[in-house]
Amino acid sequence: MAITRKTTRASPPRKSERTQATIVEAATRVFAARGYDAAGMRDIAAAAKVNPALINIYFGSKAALFRQVVDRALSHAEMIEGDLDQLAERWASFTITGISRDRKRMQASKRALQLLMRSAGSDTARLTVRDIISEQIVDRVATRLHGAHAQERAALIATYLLGFAMMQRVIGIKALAEGDSDSCVRYLTQAIQRCIAGEP
Amino acid sequence: MAITRKTTRASPPRKSERTQATIVEAATRVFAARGYDAAGMRDIAAAAKVNPALINIYFGSKAALFRQVVDRALSHAEMIEGDLDQLAERWASFTITGISRDRKRMQASKRALQLLMRSAGSDTARLTVRDIISEQIVDRVATRLHGAHAQERAALIATYLLGFAMMQRVIGIKALAEGDSDSCVRYLTQAIQRCIAGEP
Repeated sequence: MAITRKTTRASPPRKSERTQATIVEAATRVFAARGYDAAGMRDIAAAAKVNPALINIYFGSKAALFRQVVDRALSHAEMIEGDLDQLAERWASFTITGISRDRKRMQASKRALQLLMRSAGSDTARLTVRDIISEQIVDRVATRLHGAHAQERAALIATYLLGFAMMQRVIGIKALAEGDSDSCVRYLTQAIQRCIAGEP
Repeated sequence: MAITRKTTRASPPRKSERTQATIVEAATRVFAARGYDAAGMRDIAAAAKVNPALINIYFGSKAALFRQVVDRALSHAEMIEGDLDQLAERWASFTITGISRDRKRMQASKRALQLLMRSAGSDTARLTVRDIISEQIVDRVATRLHGAHAQERAALIATYLLGFAMMQRVIGIKALAEGDSDSCVRYLTQAIQRCIAGEP
């Protein structure tokens, strides 16, 4: 879902797009910091410096805005393309070392993971996160896999990567955050490669 | 940390132990449902049907009570014992199918995972979860492993198992919750076995 779709409204498209992007950006911060239930539309409007009514005009509801936020935060479409033989290593090294070497990316990743983890506290949020992980990650990866149980294998790959990211970046397990990252990349690559190849 | 340690107080040990266990049980439910910050000592006392002052007498503070709760929820000491050759398969099948076939265990597991995921919203809770995963799971598994990078390998095993459990039971990814579980057990066993054997 692109943020730019709902732009057939009164204000000129370019300004409207910018405003929507600003709202999504602010909402990401507020949802990550407070969790879905505690984040109010007024807090988000204040963080985005827009009139609260604008959020309803652009997104319709808090639930719909949250969906856009999670969709953007968990979207790694470009990660799924490319040579199948190199995906395992690419995913593992991007998750383990690639993100952490870029401060801005690291911050965005932490927020996405916080959104994901804090969704456990709300049914609306949890179901949104479930749908978006399923559609954006599991289904897309599964279409790239040959052989039986492609959905299960794709879901396991998502589990390994998101599990690692949560434990390293949000929980802060020392061996993952400060340990030998080359070694972690090798083990994770191998685990993912088995799922790609369809060889348990 | 056993719940039964702080029992050198006025009331007879057995009743005191039972009361403490009741408080920890109630606190587990309240923390899992509300998250650390929103859970009040009064709510926990009400859920446990005890005087709020008793909680302070037994546990000292909300932070200390939370530590006991997480310690109990994430403690799987018996899982770490046994023949090293069979640990990978035992962990994978217990996590994937063993727990979900037992309603009570499944409920307890869901609560433990919710505690873990919701800890992302609070620094106190997150650091407690980090310490307990490190001490109760990573360190203990690491002492059983031979060869280099035992801490990293143990942390990866914890990542695979907790990652799977979160995605299956809390987020509810369909391929993991309703897909071919034998196939998932085989892939997960293989990923863990590599970490145990020290062969990436």
